[in-house]
Amino acid sequence: MLTVFSHNHRLHHGSELKDGAVKPSFENPQRADTVLARITRERLGEVIAEQRFDRACYVAAHSERYVSFLENAWTEWAATGKTHDALPLVWPVRDLAIDQEPGFIDGKLGFYAMDAGAPITAGTWQAVRSSADVALTGMEQIIAGARGAFALCRPPGHHAAREYMGGYCYLNNAAIAAQHCLARGAKRVAILDVDFHHGNGTQNIFYDRDDVLFVSIHGDPFTAYPYFSGFANEQGVGRGLGYNVNYPLAKGTDWASYQVALGEALKRVEGYQPDALVISLGVDTFEHDPISHFRLTSTDFIRLGESIAGVGVPTLFVMEGGYMVDEIGINAVNTLQGYDGVTR
Amino acid sequence: MLTVFSHNHRLHHGSELKDGAVKPSFENPQRADTVLARITRERLGEVIAEQRFDRACYVAAHSERYVSFLENAWTEWAATGKTHDALPLVWPVRDLAIDQEPGFIDGKLGFYAMDAGAPITAGTWQAVRSSADVALTGMEQIIAGARGAFALCRPPGHHAAREYMGGYCYLNNAAIAAQHCLARGAKRVAILDVDFHHGNGTQNIFYDRDDVLFVSIHGDPFTAYPYFSGFANEQGVGRGLGYNVNYPLAKGTDWASYQVALGEALKRVEGYQPDALVISLGVDTFEHDPISHFRLTSTDFIRLGESIAGVGVPTLFVMEGGYMVDEIGINAVNTLQGYDGVTR
Repeated sequence: MLTVFSHNHRLHHGSELKDGAVKPSFENPQRADTVLARITRERLGEVIAEQRFDRACYVAAHSERYVSFLENAWTEWAATGKTHDALPLVWPVRDLAIDQEPGFIDGKLGFYAMDAGAPITAGTWQAVRSSADVALTGMEQIIAGARGAFALCRPPGHHAAREYMGGYCYLNNAAIAAQHCLARGAKRVAILDVDFHHGNGTQNIFYDRDDVLFVSIHGDPFTAYPYFSGFANEQGVGRGLGYNVNYPLAKGTDWASYQVALGEALKRVEGYQPDALVISLGVDTFEHDPISHFRLTSTDFIRLGESIAGVGVPTLFVMEGGYMVDEIGINAVNTLQGYDGVTR
Repeated sequence: MLTVFSHNHRLHHGSELKDGAVKPSFENPQRADTVLARITRERLGEVIAEQRFDRACYVAAHSERYVSFLENAWTEWAATGKTHDALPLVWPVRDLAIDQEPGFIDGKLGFYAMDAGAPITAGTWQAVRSSADVALTGMEQIIAGARGAFALCRPPGHHAAREYMGGYCYLNNAAIAAQHCLARGAKRVAILDVDFHHGNGTQNIFYDRDDVLFVSIHGDPFTAYPYFSGFANEQGVGRGLGYNVNYPLAKGTDWASYQVALGEALKRVEGYQPDALVISLGVDTFEHDPISHFRLTSTDFIRLGESIAGVGVPTLFVMEGGYMVDEIGINAVNTLQGYDGVTR
């Protein structure tokens, strides 16, 4: 399988609030580099650089003002004399949900965020747009007829909604790729999100639409991040009703239980008859992940890839989460090799 | 003027995210102690301890589940093995605004918060309920016929809404006192908030009611915290329409401009003919306040107190913000002495 990769991911290395202090983020450059090293070692296939796409491709999945905010946030922040990572300090919850963008960077940061987990640094925008370009370049491979391709995106994207960042995510790479596929002529695209955390951003972007099916398998949000979305009763609205499917699973879920939900999810995808499938590939469902609580083993990721191959639809894998750095390469590549049918 | 004070305020000393690191909060115990020292030095009047009030008095202004959350948050947090301050990590913005309380403390913290500026520590609840009791005890003085009284509350309260904390605030002391005044027979109570920051919590609690008039003079939220409320077009809803009045003022506002807004605000209060007036007394409008940007001098606070006295309604002063610790005592007591007419 071909991989798309951008060296620009290293331009983004943020911090986060963790255990009462601001520390380097779990979502760090080592993650993508570890996956790339495994790809090379396993000779998964060619690795190509991203092409540059027009920002209109990002705006197709996000709002114009949100993309502008991401482009300009660091400049506005630095203009206040600050040199540390930009983080929001107040959020528009409940009665504070207004539609007017604040006039000052501190307010804008909160206006366009769901949490304090998406720091803006000097290099963030370049890394973020390159990450989206990686996904778009991967989708071009699918459009050109590839059976599968891997977009080794970093930063990840699935928590980023039409108009807010969060959970290490800024632009929604999977959503941007799916939208691009439609723009290039596809009638229906399915997205299956297997990251441990609910892909609230992807759900948000396509919630009222029937041309993208969103299916997600994740830790029950009643007790797992992001807490406020990912419940089974979130099924879409309007034309989108029935095209949003959540499988929240209990703490400690292992492959035996996981594969039941996966089987149902893949049936939903098959029944939809999509022209292409996008996998939001988080490998934080791994048993030793430091911030999640499922129990998939490295071997289970091979089975995951094999199961996805069974759908028989051209598939773009888009890298999302996975924070056990030592194993992230093994688990991601196991999934891809499972899809390729080169392991057993 | 009599002052109500609780030593329990010292049980709460939180941290906050500031300049890229977690540091001791601007809202610290020294604040209340400095004001108390000035009261003693100036012989403002008797200082009494708070009485204990039933939690039903807090629930009258907040939701039952929110008060329960505040009571139990530290215990639930400590049960996860953590010893540092509890802070939220994700907030229910936009499509994430659900009504179901999460089942895990990390989720609950965000569910009941607007920002990361209200840390929960081991002593927070005891300090918070004592602060509300200080306000209630002060209101009992007004009900008993006092012309004025000072509730030296800490933590402050005006950012705390019916169901969320934020901006150093947990229970809304001013709102709880106003509600108590109604419960004890008053027909109408007015609240005038002169803190630099908009009292979004108080606005939230009384927004649909006409038995409490809320008037606030503050930094324009377009460029000042809390960014998402405090605009002039927020005038109340339903029966409350017309009973919520905001005066957002420009950066650098000095007494000359301030007193114009104050004059209008006091006319609104007079016209309402309230049985009692509650002043949310923040002195962060001071020219040297480290986190605000008005330009009131210490002498101006005397004029502020005199102007409030001109309304001729029994008045409870409730301490809110003010972060220039050296001057907070002078500016708060100047206001009270201005009201008492003992300075010139």
